[in-house]
Amino acid sequence: MSDPRILTVRPEPGEFAWTFGGAPPVARIAPGTVLDLYTEDCFAGRVRSEQDLVSRVCEFPFLNPQTGPFHVEGAEPGDTLAVHFVSVEPARDRAASTTVPLFGALTSTHATASLHEPLPEVVWMWQLDRARRTCLFSARDSDTEIELPMDPMHGTVGVAPANLEVRSALVPDAHGGNMDTPEMRAGVTCFLGVNVEGALLSLGDGHARQGEGETCGVAVECAMNTVVIVELLKGVATPWPRLESDTHIISTGSARPLEDAFRIAQLGLVDWLHRDFGLSRLDAYQLVTQASESPLANVCDANYTCVAKLRREWLPPGSAHRGVHGQLRETAGALGSPGKR
Amino acid sequence: MSDPRILTVRPEPGEFAWTFGGAPPVARIAPGTVLDLYTEDCFAGRVRSEQDLVSRVCEFPFLNPQTGPFHVEGAEPGDTLAVHFVSVEPARDRAASTTVPLFGALTSTHATASLHEPLPEVVWMWQLDRARRTCLFSARDSDTEIELPMDPMHGTVGVAPANLEVRSALVPDAHGGNMDTPEMRAGVTCFLGVNVEGALLSLGDGHARQGEGETCGVAVECAMNTVVIVELLKGVATPWPRLESDTHIISTGSARPLEDAFRIAQLGLVDWLHRDFGLSRLDAYQLVTQASESPLANVCDANYTCVAKLRREWLPPGSAHRGVHGQLRETAGALGSPGKR
Amino acid sequence: MSDPRILTVRPEPGEFAWTFGGAPPVARIAPGTVLDLYTEDCFAGRVRSEQDLVSRVCEFPFLNPQTGPFHVEGAEPGDTLAVHFVSVEPARDRAASTTVPLFGALTSTHATASLHEPLPEVVWMWQLDRARRTCLFSARDSDTEIELPMDPMHGTVGVAPANLEVRSALVPDAHGGNMDTPEMRAGVTCFLGVNVEGALLSLGDGHARQGEGETCGVAVECAMNTVVIVELLKGVATPWPRLESDTHIISTGSARPLEDAFRIAQLGLVDWLHRDFGLSRLDAYQLVTQASESPLANVCDANYTCVAKLRREWLPPGSAHRGVHGQLRETAGALGSPGKR
Amino acid sequence: MSDPRILTVRPEPGEFAWTFGGAPPVARIAPGTVLDLYTEDCFAGRVRSEQDLVSRVCEFPFLNPQTGPFHVEGAEPGDTLAVHFVSVEPARDRAASTTVPLFGALTSTHATASLHEPLPEVVWMWQLDRARRTCLFSARDSDTEIELPMDPMHGTVGVAPANLEVRSALVPDAHGGNMDTPEMRAGVTCFLGVNVEGALLSLGDGHARQGEGETCGVAVECAMNTVVIVELLKGVATPWPRLESDTHIISTGSARPLEDAFRIAQLGLVDWLHRDFGLSRLDAYQLVTQASESPLANVCDANYTCVAKLRREWLPPGSAHRGVHGQLRETAGALGSPGKR
Repeated sequence: MSDPRILTVRPEPGEFAWTFGGAPPVARIAPGTVLDLYTEDCFAGRVRSEQDLVSRVCEFPFLNPQTGPFHVEGAEPGDTLAVHFVSVEPARDRAASTTVPLFGALTSTHATASLHEPLPEVVWMWQLDRARRTCLFSARDSDTEIELPMDPMHGTVGVAPANLEVRSALVPDAHGGNMDTPEMRAGVTCFLGVNVEGALLSLGDGHARQGEGETCGVAVECAMNTVVIVELLKGVATPWPRLESDTHIISTGSARPLEDAFRIAQLGLVDWLHRDFGLSRLDAYQLVTQASESPLANVCDANYTCVAKLRREWLPPGSAHRGVHGQLRETAGALGSPGKR
Repeated sequence: MSDPRILTVRPEPGEFAWTFGGAPPVARIAPGTVLDLYTEDCFAGRVRSEQDLVSRVCEFPFLNPQTGPFHVEGAEPGDTLAVHFVSVEPARDRAASTTVPLFGALTSTHATASLHEPLPEVVWMWQLDRARRTCLFSARDSDTEIELPMDPMHGTVGVAPANLEVRSALVPDAHGGNMDTPEMRAGVTCFLGVNVEGALLSLGDGHARQGEGETCGVAVECAMNTVVIVELLKGVATPWPRLESDTHIISTGSARPLEDAFRIAQLGLVDWLHRDFGLSRLDAYQLVTQASESPLANVCDANYTCVAKLRREWLPPGSAHRGVHGQLRETAGALGSPGKR
Repeated sequence: MSDPRILTVRPEPGEFAWTFGGAPPVARIAPGTVLDLYTEDCFAGRVRSEQDLVSRVCEFPFLNPQTGPFHVEGAEPGDTLAVHFVSVEPARDRAASTTVPLFGALTSTHATASLHEPLPEVVWMWQLDRARRTCLFSARDSDTEIELPMDPMHGTVGVAPANLEVRSALVPDAHGGNMDTPEMRAGVTCFLGVNVEGALLSLGDGHARQGEGETCGVAVECAMNTVVIVELLKGVATPWPRLESDTHIISTGSARPLEDAFRIAQLGLVDWLHRDFGLSRLDAYQLVTQASESPLANVCDANYTCVAKLRREWLPPGSAHRGVHGQLRETAGALGSPGKR
Repeated sequence: MSDPRILTVRPEPGEFAWTFGGAPPVARIAPGTVLDLYTEDCFAGRVRSEQDLVSRVCEFPFLNPQTGPFHVEGAEPGDTLAVHFVSVEPARDRAASTTVPLFGALTSTHATASLHEPLPEVVWMWQLDRARRTCLFSARDSDTEIELPMDPMHGTVGVAPANLEVRSALVPDAHGGNMDTPEMRAGVTCFLGVNVEGALLSLGDGHARQGEGETCGVAVECAMNTVVIVELLKGVATPWPRLESDTHIISTGSARPLEDAFRIAQLGLVDWLHRDFGLSRLDAYQLVTQASESPLANVCDANYTCVAKLRREWLPPGSAHRGVHGQLRETAGALGSPGKR
């Protein structure tokens, strides 16, 4: 692979997108371009202390700022974008989480409506130690402190949706978006089906780490310096976002109720085994039943997200997405260590 | 701890239970007893080849035979049973899985009712290599064979339910039952709240391995030789089944829709952190949000089951269930290697 | 039809059943028997004033007392019981409703678990005017009084469940039980599939009236004097409870999530039109789509219940359940006005 | 009220909108304007015979054409639009319904994903007798014909959504849209919260009639001549669409799972009684529990829709939406019989 072009984008306030679809592209890029990006946190950087309650300092609907969108030259409906995460590195030493009134899994919400008053709004500031790669939890109601490993990821990555729609950056669906899966970390390639000319890729919502399910609705939210390589697979359709890591193939589904997200993700894995690895659909159903890992991604957003993972070492012979994950892995290696720059 | 009593139970056909509650105890045991058990597979051993379709060879509702129930002396409502899995070892070299008409996650069912005809009924026989600890998948529609690691577990362990009810052994709920979580393996202690005098513990439904979610509804089903130690915690209530391993504390929830199972399991973890580890409930909510692992257990049974796991090394100081997991671990060690007997 | 036998049963405290299945029959009756019954309210009569909070005066699990069960001679699995409601008349001038902590549709519950504190527990006493057939709502927090029409019904009617199970009288499922549909009123015939020898019919949970969905979980709860005629249809299977009125055929479904209850009820109507009225299943699907009424029954119980109704005047030629509804209607007419006795 | 302005809009092919939000207004209207509209059916008029399968003759995503949008002068976020349906009259003598692959309540869908093949695609043509006001069902697989009353309605009416979004005309949500409730008939006023300047009202998806739940996903679809009066209520917020008829006040909710749609609609009614009729929220909860009618609207669309109805005669003293329904009713009367023109 020849020397890739590198495009650096560090948006100023006012230069972010708040939707998938509906926002003009910030740049046109050729397939193979390396994007060296700054992403702001989901609060648009406004939660800086325990006093900064979201309901006071944030301005709805200007949440979850997206860096992009990028128009990928030649991308057309029916193609697939491959977004390889070379590095995802926190851009600050602090990160924030919070409860948000009527949002989260263990509270009444606007949809799971009830007569309860909202839970209290509380902010937790997390200290990041980027050298030691840890995040420090400091309890609000006691002196407890707990150090957790940093595991940086992007909650949100997606393209313009189909069906003429424009969706809030807070929504995950078939176009990707706010899937909030911890699998979206450095070393992974994310595959997104293209719905409109140019695809209109954007990403944001960095998390220093996140539990599976994102129970309270808000992870350890953090601005990020992120490097991705964007490739284009012509003539390959991807109905729901997929990921590949060095160890797993991973399908996703986003829907409500949660069992529908599970069904979509698992059927995605069955169909993947059928098309790329030669198993009949029923044989694939059996293999997935016994071999899949099924960690939850989010159970708090407008749609809930499940992933379905299968170890590469357990796959029949075959190749996914024309082997592009392995190629991008190599290209990334040749870049040096861009994430550490 | 003094020399534990060992009770060996290997039921003959006709000596199994088919429900939680409603079956007379097969034995009364003192707390601390070691049970050396044989459990039959969920088909009552009747699926022995690819020709043995469940709809033909099995006799409803005589599915999922339980070894037990055991009346634990002194157990009363409000107490908790601790069931430590010393060893779970396949009793045969073959195991079976199958599709079952109108059952499973990727099919219409009796509840998710539709106008579709049922999917085809297909049996897969799995060969177990107990020395190498592998399970061999043989595809039905191609020559593909895939070797997966053996990871033996019990799909079903529970006590008599509350509210005067008797539940089929196929149902998971607050009394445990058919939770179908791969976490229920050797080395783990399962905590079950006692609802009736004597608790009436039983277990069955061994799986040589199972994916998370048990997508088609049937794991690698296998008869087991299983050794457990049964302890009693007086005056400790456990509203939903919990597990402890050497690495994690684990709560469970079983309900429909799946998000309710998630809510129960996650709230269980929050409450656990609050009561045994001194965090306020909101601080616990925050920690769980960033630190929990949330693999699915089953998305096919009468209730769906989620588990919520937290690494022990990330816990604040404190002790769960009076440290009984550690004690039982030691007792198990002193037994020699009973699973290999 | 010859002179029907009449059996009068007015249980004393201590003579009620609290489950479907698992309770010994109070009487053996021949098909065709008229049952002249007293049913206690769901609180076992213990909520007599606004001070009688359920959490204080009631004793779990002794809620929702059932009059019965009745062993119907000759009833076997595969048969259907026809229970015709001749009259359903409030037995007292007062009725009660209440919020119950962690129960109801607009609150967190044990299944839809959250960190909210329970809603306040409040009792409303309703005055019944049996001559004018009205129920008087008296607001607790203002002077507002509103008179609603009385529309007496039974929330609970069912038989012993299948699969060796015993279910709490608070649960609706395929055996009937706590369906809480306002359709279960005088003039209606309820069809219940028989699961065990003798069927073991019981009923209770009278409501002076109830909205569709039973939002807070508790209707205008009232002891009842109720007359039913019990018939037996040999060799007719009924997978889910059905009802017939003079104007409608009505199928039911009880499940979670609510869309599964809807699916069961609507598929029930499609299958009914297919088997008894000669439409193909797809033609029946189309007719049901354009013609069904789909009022909710309950969205608060352990399973949610939907009904699907079709006007008799829009049915193709055919006959449901061997015309037994019409025959029982006539028999009821010949009884005089037993409800007014 | 002075003589209302009347605007007639009969779009040509190519002049319809396919989304809520994102389409330029076809006209600016002053509050009080009477709109005399033609709406095309959901198939854009392309299903004209039993041979016209949707998968062949329709062009995704160009389904469910909307007449509009109309920019209402002075409408701002925080206001409410009142849309009074003066008349809704079928514009043709034929209407069509159909199954659509992977769409509907009694089939696997893209969200409730499975391994089943889609159900057969079948079209039913319905003959309308506009003089006698009937719709004739002709079975496809037998000679059965059934005449049902015509009950014309609009499946879709809405405004531009909040949060910068653009939604497909097939989606119901807080902005209205494809709610598919049979309540949306002549004589009713629909209240929609304004999210963007000018509100951007549009409507379409006429049904000659529809069952509650729209089981197969497609009603008796028909082009319509429809007259509405559009009023503006400044400073009145309406979080979810509401309706008023001469007999009922009606709230709506659209979500998945279906119980969340129920919760939203019922909480809407509780809040309505609290704000406009002076009941405390708990007293309102009680009244709604005993008095609400809860017919399903759709259980097939991207969100499911419930309505919650309360009879006006059972309301405490008070007035909803400043009495605008009554005023619009009078204005409509003064128009003569525009629907019959």
